[in-house]
Amino acid sequence: MKDSFVIRGNIIYSVDKDNLSVTEGGYAVCEDGICRGVYRELPDEFKEFDLIDCGDKLVIPGMYDLHAHAPQYAFRGLGMDLELLDWLNSQAFPEESKYRDEEYARRAYRIFVEDLKNSFTCRASIFATAHTEATKILMSYLEESGLKTYVGRVNMDRNAADYLVEESAEFSLRETVKTIEETAELENTKFILTPRFIPSCTDELMKGISDIRKQYGLNVQSHLSENFGEIDWVRELCPWSDFYGDAYDRFGLFGGEDYKAIMAHCVHCSDEEIALMKERGVYVAHCPQSNTDLSSGIAPIRKYLNSGLKVGLGSDIAAGYTLDMFRTIVETVQVSKLYWRLVDESMRPVTVKEAFYLATVGGGSFYGKLGRFEEGYEFDALVLDDSSIRTSLELNPGERLERAIYLGNTSLIIMKFVSGREISLEKSAQ
Amino acid sequence: MKDSFVIRGNIIYSVDKDNLSVTEGGYAVCEDGICRGVYRELPDEFKEFDLIDCGDKLVIPGMYDLHAHAPQYAFRGLGMDLELLDWLNSQAFPEESKYRDEEYARRAYRIFVEDLKNSFTCRASIFATAHTEATKILMSYLEESGLKTYVGRVNMDRNAADYLVEESAEFSLRETVKTIEETAELENTKFILTPRFIPSCTDELMKGISDIRKQYGLNVQSHLSENFGEIDWVRELCPWSDFYGDAYDRFGLFGGEDYKAIMAHCVHCSDEEIALMKERGVYVAHCPQSNTDLSSGIAPIRKYLNSGLKVGLGSDIAAGYTLDMFRTIVETVQVSKLYWRLVDESMRPVTVKEAFYLATVGGGSFYGKLGRFEEGYEFDALVLDDSSIRTSLELNPGERLERAIYLGNTSLIIMKFVSGREISLEKSAQ
Repeated sequence: MKDSFVIRGNIIYSVDKDNLSVTEGGYAVCEDGICRGVYRELPDEFKEFDLIDCGDKLVIPGMYDLHAHAPQYAFRGLGMDLELLDWLNSQAFPEESKYRDEEYARRAYRIFVEDLKNSFTCRASIFATAHTEATKILMSYLEESGLKTYVGRVNMDRNAADYLVEESAEFSLRETVKTIEETAELENTKFILTPRFIPSCTDELMKGISDIRKQYGLNVQSHLSENFGEIDWVRELCPWSDFYGDAYDRFGLFGGEDYKAIMAHCVHCSDEEIALMKERGVYVAHCPQSNTDLSSGIAPIRKYLNSGLKVGLGSDIAAGYTLDMFRTIVETVQVSKLYWRLVDESMRPVTVKEAFYLATVGGGSFYGKLGRFEEGYEFDALVLDDSSIRTSLELNPGERLERAIYLGNTSLIIMKFVSGREISLEKSAQ
Repeated sequence: MKDSFVIRGNIIYSVDKDNLSVTEGGYAVCEDGICRGVYRELPDEFKEFDLIDCGDKLVIPGMYDLHAHAPQYAFRGLGMDLELLDWLNSQAFPEESKYRDEEYARRAYRIFVEDLKNSFTCRASIFATAHTEATKILMSYLEESGLKTYVGRVNMDRNAADYLVEESAEFSLRETVKTIEETAELENTKFILTPRFIPSCTDELMKGISDIRKQYGLNVQSHLSENFGEIDWVRELCPWSDFYGDAYDRFGLFGGEDYKAIMAHCVHCSDEEIALMKERGVYVAHCPQSNTDLSSGIAPIRKYLNSGLKVGLGSDIAAGYTLDMFRTIVETVQVSKLYWRLVDESMRPVTVKEAFYLATVGGGSFYGKLGRFEEGYEFDALVLDDSSIRTSLELNPGERLERAIYLGNTSLIIMKFVSGREISLEKSAQ
């Protein structure tokens, strides 16, 4: 049967935020791309499935990256001494403008997609640029990769560099519809509406995006309350809004019963904003590396978890410098410790288990029933060989996973599955 | 001539905190272990030296790790949800007690030394345990490695777990002298006095260590002002001291004209303490990863630089989880940004260049004339192949170094030299 097999290994996943399920030498069953559960002994009904014996290796769910800017990948790890608005003008905008050149887009996106394919990430939500052809190129490469992604052609018709800003709201909307229609046949790669952020979209543009959303039934991704300068700017630009998130909401672009919205960062949300996020079911894309690198601050993730918000993790390439979601897990824990120590002692740190949950189940739920090896979940999985991390201790699989998260990188991955389909890895790339 | 050669490549080092010297396709000359400078064209006098052509690769100074606990290496990346005093009792002390078993010490220290050898670190200051034989084993392995290190048998005769605390001050002192004398012949590996920290050393022990220091002319390493609980504890234990650092100073163990002291952490130093550190020439071992992992806080490195203190970087294995000094550089920058944003807006973030300077020249000066490829400096160097970090951009060597620091790991290292001697790398280890 297509995409049906059994993996034997040390199977680990989050039952809930505080508890891991660990089955040493267990069997994870995938039938037609869907998980049929984990077993200590393989039931007879699955004995005719192909068996992939991974021995003592670790088998964990795929990771989900709720926020990444593909066209910024080329300059990851560069220009790391700047804040958001300066960084946009000196790093992000000049690089993004290159994607009007399709040949450049091909060269750069090829590298991004290959590295994403080799990473822990199985599904992701990705910003392209405000260039239709380049966005289509990115989407076609992602389609071939076997990863499942949402990709947005970015809308931005004000307050960006002259060489990058779109000529009009009308142009931006027309090109958006064109991109949606010309990529509608893709199977793994879906369009997601992507107004860059309030400061770069006129009211006319936001209204038009909202109309497209209703017409095509699409999800939305954008940025929210990342930086104090940005928040002040939104207040000036939208005097009719009560707060930043309210500005999205008035246009019907902040999530709701019939569609989902991802808001990246959420570093400085007010209680009012948090309440509306909860009501609308907004997904917080927590990007700790980016928030540190751009000196934006620390998002109060414990507060969001206590408030019952939906939270997943994002790399935010390239304000975050790496696609490596293990690093994002570590930095989620790290910044929460500093938040607890330096900002609010009532908000206890996020644990390693909780951050692992956010990277798998938390973000995964945006894409479907994902992140657990339980009956009915889609079968996304990573097989890790952690033998290169040497120690004199005897460790159990749960300890080995914690250690791999802290010390490992994508070189640990030896197999990767998305909906039960194996992704071919190129081990040479970093 | 012994240890004399020329390396051709892109030669980069810190001229000062704010400026890199970058010589594209230049020649770095090593004569008998000492640098003779960097040249765009190779002078005739060096044309008979062996030429190591590293093509387009990056050639940078070695890195210096001012603070690491070798016996904790086995559990790096584990137990990451604890604070200092709990972590000592549940993680560090139980593991350290195993080193009374020489066979275990051999097995565990072999891994530590091999991984250190494969790392960016050329010289380091290392805590062993309070076990004489195990300390000698560690020192002999380090001696063989070719790295240059200071190693201390730890003194601790109070306030540690029963199974680990030394039986008396007299015993601790006698064993310390024994270790000093039995390792005196080593060439690369030097003894450094290592009272664990004030809470674990009686006054009698501290007095005795001070006497040994004078007798043998040794340097000192310890911990300072890491955590609020610890600082309060020192105040109770040493009511006769004005502050934590003053307690070391009253015993003559805080550095001075004829010897050097490294104090790890220095997260919460008062102005009085900073003034005394400056007067005594104390080396601050800044361990940002550890200070985050144990929720200790953020050391105000900008303040220390402004105050003219000596600052180097430390991994603090295993409260820090990795020996990778590139990661320590990145986290130095990262936490300084959060300090600026969350604690004190007058203390601007540490730049990538400054943190690179601290990892090379800053820490290196503890060990000698190190960290620059200039006439008369000892020749410690790393050759990096960063070709696996792909991009569509044309980058200059300075940009490639910044990117390698953020994105690379020890797998980038293809050659490593300490005092002009090549260290043999085992590329399989992580």
